[in-house]
Amino acid sequence: MLMSGPAVHPVEAPPPATDVAPPRVRMKDIQGMAGTSGALALRICQFVFAAVSLCVMATTSDFPSVTAFRCDSEFMIHNCDRNFLVLVVSYLVAAVGLQSMWSLSLALADLYALLVRRRFRNTGAVSLFAIGDGITSTLTFAAACASAGITVLIGNDLNKCNLNHCTRFMSATAMAFLSWFAVSPSFILNFWSLASR
Amino acid sequence: MLMSGPAVHPVEAPPPATDVAPPRVRMKDIQGMAGTSGALALRICQFVFAAVSLCVMATTSDFPSVTAFRCDSEFMIHNCDRNFLVLVVSYLVAAVGLQSMWSLSLALADLYALLVRRRFRNTGAVSLFAIGDGITSTLTFAAACASAGITVLIGNDLNKCNLNHCTRFMSATAMAFLSWFAVSPSFILNFWSLASR
Repeated sequence: MLMSGPAVHPVEAPPPATDVAPPRVRMKDIQGMAGTSGALALRICQFVFAAVSLCVMATTSDFPSVTAFRCDSEFMIHNCDRNFLVLVVSYLVAAVGLQSMWSLSLALADLYALLVRRRFRNTGAVSLFAIGDGITSTLTFAAACASAGITVLIGNDLNKCNLNHCTRFMSATAMAFLSWFAVSPSFILNFWSLASR
Repeated sequence: MLMSGPAVHPVEAPPPATDVAPPRVRMKDIQGMAGTSGALALRICQFVFAAVSLCVMATTSDFPSVTAFRCDSEFMIHNCDRNFLVLVVSYLVAAVGLQSMWSLSLALADLYALLVRRRFRNTGAVSLFAIGDGITSTLTFAAACASAGITVLIGNDLNKCNLNHCTRFMSATAMAFLSWFAVSPSFILNFWSLASR
């Protein structure tokens, strides 16, 4: 190098110091809390599983007004009005129906929140979501447990399994369990976001 | 009054102004959170209901190693090893057994906390309580729902109810449900106190 004098290296100007306060963070937005894309994915899972469970029961060939197991001689011992099995099936259908409607509504709410780029800050809305999730998940879980117990008892111990019915009933039960698995994180995260504010 | 001069009334000295900061309140201690007398009452309820459920199953006259329904011709269709009913009964016994042990342990912990006049401030301890409550309550609820479905099916639809067994089984199921009702507030309050810190 023949040049004398100091070699001056250009230095990037430091970013101007801002006195503007950073946006106030009220809570961490964990994926899965109401209004996030994770919540939307969970809601869609819940809706799909519950809807599949409902469809499996509804498309049984001899689906009467509300029950999948018709009052046929296969399962009937007493008169049909007092048939407990019909009651449990009706309850399962009602529970997954309620679950699918609830999940669809909240999926739409989450979709709207994502489109307008807002979060649900309203305590009332989040507590409504948490309470509704708690109720629907409890109902779905109870229906799934009861119908699982009854189906396996009929199929395994009593050996009275009309093949078509039992398979459909078990599929619907499995879908109800999967729907419950998807509701649980929603409930826990909504409850968490409610408690942590 | 013949005395002149001002009548001096003794005045209590005002309490000395303290510069000591008031004790820092970290969270509201709602009755039912770990370490309060409400929590102890809830734990005792849980333990009593779960223990009664366990005792009802255990004192069945022909209680085999772990199951209340022996493999008798009343309920047996297949060989006994594959009997699903026995499996559900075993699961109910295991679930309420776990529930009673868990509730007794936490009742002792709450009693200790009350005696030494401390609260559980440790995040790890409270999260352990919340997670344990969540797991045991889910297990108890699932066992209660499944056994309720099976018992009513056997008694109502199949009309195969050995009177003594069915009554005991239903009582145990009802006690398991009551135990779950008592666990739910503990779970919700512990989870709330965990999230709100």
